[in-house]
Amino acid sequence: MIDSTRYPRLSQVQTPADLRRFGEDELPAIAEELRAYLIESVGKSGGHFAAGLGVIELTVALHYLYQTPADQLVWDVGHQTYPHKILTGRRDQIHTVKQKDGVAPFPKREESPYDTFGVGHSSTSISAALGMAIALQQAGDERKVVAVIGDGAMTAGMAYEALNHAGGMDPEPNLLVILNDNRMSISEAVGGLTKMLGRATGSRTLNAIREGGKKILGDKKSNPTARFVRRWEEHWKGMFVPSTLFEEMGFHYTGPIDGHDLPALLGALKTLKTLKGPQLLHVITTKGKGYELAEGDQIGYHAVGPFDPEKGLVAKAGAVKKPTYTDIFSDWLCDMAAADPKLLGITPAMREGSGLVRFSKEYPLRYFDTAIAEQHAVTLAAGMATQGAKPVVAIYSTFLQRAYDQLVHDVAVQDLDVLFAIDRGGVVGPDGATHAGNLDLSFLRCVPNMVVMAPADEAEARQMLTTGHRHVGPAAVRYPRGTGPGTVAGTELTTLPIGKAQVRREGRRIALLAFGASVPAAEKVGEELGLTVVNMRFVKPLDRTLLLQLAQDHEGFVTIEDNVVAGGAGSGVSELFNAEGVLRPVLHLGLPDAFQHHASREDLLAEAGIDAAGIRAAVLKRWPDIATQPPLSAAG
Amino acid sequence: MIDSTRYPRLSQVQTPADLRRFGEDELPAIAEELRAYLIESVGKSGGHFAAGLGVIELTVALHYLYQTPADQLVWDVGHQTYPHKILTGRRDQIHTVKQKDGVAPFPKREESPYDTFGVGHSSTSISAALGMAIALQQAGDERKVVAVIGDGAMTAGMAYEALNHAGGMDPEPNLLVILNDNRMSISEAVGGLTKMLGRATGSRTLNAIREGGKKILGDKKSNPTARFVRRWEEHWKGMFVPSTLFEEMGFHYTGPIDGHDLPALLGALKTLKTLKGPQLLHVITTKGKGYELAEGDQIGYHAVGPFDPEKGLVAKAGAVKKPTYTDIFSDWLCDMAAADPKLLGITPAMREGSGLVRFSKEYPLRYFDTAIAEQHAVTLAAGMATQGAKPVVAIYSTFLQRAYDQLVHDVAVQDLDVLFAIDRGGVVGPDGATHAGNLDLSFLRCVPNMVVMAPADEAEARQMLTTGHRHVGPAAVRYPRGTGPGTVAGTELTTLPIGKAQVRREGRRIALLAFGASVPAAEKVGEELGLTVVNMRFVKPLDRTLLLQLAQDHEGFVTIEDNVVAGGAGSGVSELFNAEGVLRPVLHLGLPDAFQHHASREDLLAEAGIDAAGIRAAVLKRWPDIATQPPLSAAG
Repeated sequence: MIDSTRYPRLSQVQTPADLRRFGEDELPAIAEELRAYLIESVGKSGGHFAAGLGVIELTVALHYLYQTPADQLVWDVGHQTYPHKILTGRRDQIHTVKQKDGVAPFPKREESPYDTFGVGHSSTSISAALGMAIALQQAGDERKVVAVIGDGAMTAGMAYEALNHAGGMDPEPNLLVILNDNRMSISEAVGGLTKMLGRATGSRTLNAIREGGKKILGDKKSNPTARFVRRWEEHWKGMFVPSTLFEEMGFHYTGPIDGHDLPALLGALKTLKTLKGPQLLHVITTKGKGYELAEGDQIGYHAVGPFDPEKGLVAKAGAVKKPTYTDIFSDWLCDMAAADPKLLGITPAMREGSGLVRFSKEYPLRYFDTAIAEQHAVTLAAGMATQGAKPVVAIYSTFLQRAYDQLVHDVAVQDLDVLFAIDRGGVVGPDGATHAGNLDLSFLRCVPNMVVMAPADEAEARQMLTTGHRHVGPAAVRYPRGTGPGTVAGTELTTLPIGKAQVRREGRRIALLAFGASVPAAEKVGEELGLTVVNMRFVKPLDRTLLLQLAQDHEGFVTIEDNVVAGGAGSGVSELFNAEGVLRPVLHLGLPDAFQHHASREDLLAEAGIDAAGIRAAVLKRWPDIATQPPLSAAG
Repeated sequence: MIDSTRYPRLSQVQTPADLRRFGEDELPAIAEELRAYLIESVGKSGGHFAAGLGVIELTVALHYLYQTPADQLVWDVGHQTYPHKILTGRRDQIHTVKQKDGVAPFPKREESPYDTFGVGHSSTSISAALGMAIALQQAGDERKVVAVIGDGAMTAGMAYEALNHAGGMDPEPNLLVILNDNRMSISEAVGGLTKMLGRATGSRTLNAIREGGKKILGDKKSNPTARFVRRWEEHWKGMFVPSTLFEEMGFHYTGPIDGHDLPALLGALKTLKTLKGPQLLHVITTKGKGYELAEGDQIGYHAVGPFDPEKGLVAKAGAVKKPTYTDIFSDWLCDMAAADPKLLGITPAMREGSGLVRFSKEYPLRYFDTAIAEQHAVTLAAGMATQGAKPVVAIYSTFLQRAYDQLVHDVAVQDLDVLFAIDRGGVVGPDGATHAGNLDLSFLRCVPNMVVMAPADEAEARQMLTTGHRHVGPAAVRYPRGTGPGTVAGTELTTLPIGKAQVRREGRRIALLAFGASVPAAEKVGEELGLTVVNMRFVKPLDRTLLLQLAQDHEGFVTIEDNVVAGGAGSGVSELFNAEGVLRPVLHLGLPDAFQHHASREDLLAEAGIDAAGIRAAVLKRWPDIATQPPLSAAG
């Protein structure tokens, strides 16, 4: 329970209705309590941190002035919604964030009526909010819709598509987009004008004049005088503030204002609540605000494990950490770049997560961060490949969904030489369904020309990356989040024969055909039950020769993968057997036809029945007599 | 062969090298010949028309001044490249456009070294060209890169992502983007300034001053004076021309200039060729230019069948046309809108192609054209659904690839009530691989919560649309290009039970399990060979009960679908049998694991072996003794 001595006001706030009982003058104090409480609770639980600290005042102001949950508040990405969750009924559960059955790390419709739109991927908020605004207008419903989007998220194409649509509509949608600008992309020189301009354009008086002018002149684009006045206003402001982009899109721009100045925020929002049409409020905030260590290291404090707020993040001493697959990729990328001057590395704004930090430092001219722009990143790579360069696109499985058309239409149709290094394939875990990489083998396997690989361990990951890089044509290496079994990846750049699987153990009766991260568990079960175990390595092309050979002396097959069964790697094995007229029972183990909730990776693999215990149980259920036979190794 | 009397100059031009032998003063005459030749040849062959007429002068100017194919010319979308193809070695084959083994209707790398980047989907050109520019710069190669993109294509997010990336890079990429503005989005008031501004900003003198200023002030964003000068320049121009969007993105803007004025074009391009960094040239053109009927009806003349240039397009008299699936959708949408006020219709810039013309007229306030913005269109629908509206997203299969993440992350994860009306599913035909809908059943089937339907005929298409609309949750109805077997769709709004297949005929030994457009051919073969035929209707969920029942008295199954076999609907049948422990031979017929070239739909279905002859042959190959048995109907 919350300590009412340390949090005298916040302890009285269960929902925004409680918040609204306080006077405006008490809101800064509530904001301070909220900030302290967030630092305390994330210190205990870990989780997304710096983004939440940056929107404390904005969160308080929005829930204070808008009638949430009736009014619809849409948070982009969702990293920043811990303060929102604390103020909307989840104060006492926030310490369970990211845990199984705990609070989700992102807004989630099932969790709360205050979470109007589930997120995880960035840049969806304007589209979603516009859809809401339209639907409400259609129903004659006066409720308000507000989207809060960061400047980073604004780089993605879909945010622009939504601005362009909203700004050009007739009748105009009633929608407020709040641009939460925390990158300090506004330089100091302009910063000096912030407060003045915020007050000026945010004030009721000026807007009243503007609205009055609309009535006199009309606001149609066809009226030349109105258009001129509008252009004049735009460009007068445009001399000083980055308003023109938004004004050209048809939004009325207010700002920039200091997003940590509650009275200024409240003033601007009160005005904006009275305005019709598409509105954009530009607020400047500091990620990590109020926690000095986070302000100074916004990337380090983006998401954290549990830590002592007094000391901050402390590098763990002691045992050498086992390298993650991301680390393996990171080292491989630098080594391959040294060996091949044609290698170029691309990331859509995931330098840290995808393991390109070292590469970006060692090869700054061959490193390309496209911002949050997965579509562009992939077609950029296709363009590079037409000139004989060897681009590597490092991307999370879940974000590759954003570039699916570009992978098909620009890379695969043209058979261009692009390597996709796909991190976070399969079960991802604590970030929940929005970040799951459960579908990639299915949506990649159906694409002609693709070579699709999944490594069983670290050494193989390195070999596969080399294989994909050397292969002329599109290739993907898909590896899981976190660490593998712990093989040493080494420093060599060796390749694997394309389309060849590896028999890990020869057993009898049943062959376990395991893909990628499922290999170690399959091997364990194979040992126990005396079965054949194959590390399939290639999802596409499959090792036809080996599969036909195995079919001759095995009575059944089990395919195992950390991908949905529907259309997955195992499904490909059945297709091959069917095409060849091989008739053998095949049991497909994989992820369920359902979105998995957030929990640890281990929990989710167990739930899906593809950890060793699950595989064992499934095999014995299908072939109960296996259990009564001694394993081949013992018998032989 | 080209008539050298009527085309005295063009007949001497096989490649751009020939073009460059003419003097600049002769180029307008060549342009006129090219225009006349295009009208004549498209009149004979049909094909994309108005877009090509709009870029005659631009095409001539670019190939004249740039050293193609060494310099890289990237055409966006590709509708407009017939003049380019005529000037680059394909003059005498252009009449074969869209035909099997003929010239492709879009740029295609395999076809010509002048086609630097294959397209079909819009808005990829800036990304591709930037990739080329970077790769060339990395290699110290001075060749130039030019992208030509229409104003329509500029609405897509990925174009914006690419501009944003290119404009913010350090070192700057050397890249010219030509904005081919043919929508007359520049109003008359601004039009008067066109020539003057084009001359002013395009002149070498002004640019020399500008470049000189850069040297003195430096061009870094950190230099406040340089920034101020730049802002001042931007905003002075911004008062009159739509330059600010591009300037804010970091491009140097030139224009607008008249894209049909060859001397003006040549002048501007000569200047731009000498400039470094990201350049944007804004040209104003008229779609259909020089062919009066096309200028007056740009949509009608976008793509045409063969016609007499003297008479123009003539409505075909005589027999009543069989309605296409698009027509069925069009009628259904209006009927359902009348029945359900919550229905909202969304199209990403495909009003005509997707059949929303009537709806847009009858229900203008419930009709939403998002521009070329598939990502936004789908998340917009998701937002609408959160408020209880019933959005219908009408989209081509191939373009749905652009919104895959939004379908997964925004619609399916949240189980929101969005109906996808997917046109051009399966084999599309003359537009080639870039427009094929061969993958959708695979990439949709793996997504949890989706209901996926494929109608066997027109009446069923209507029923499925109603079913999807009434179903609460995400659903997709996927239908082919063109016409179906010709059943009458009627005017009722009836539903089908979800997950129930329809036995079309009871036969023996083998059951043909056909999906969607494959049903009629399967039925024919079933009749001939006395086999059971099932219209599966639902790709997801499958009719488990029926399949298990059929497994009891059939020795084998054939799945038939106009989708790739990999992960397709038939693959789902195998997964179900495998999960249930049913061991029966299954033969999967479907589209190949390869991108199909352009040809008629019928040709491609035959090539894939999923027309009646192909199905028959495949069944008899697997079960040769079927042929020697009398059909059940004859026997019974």
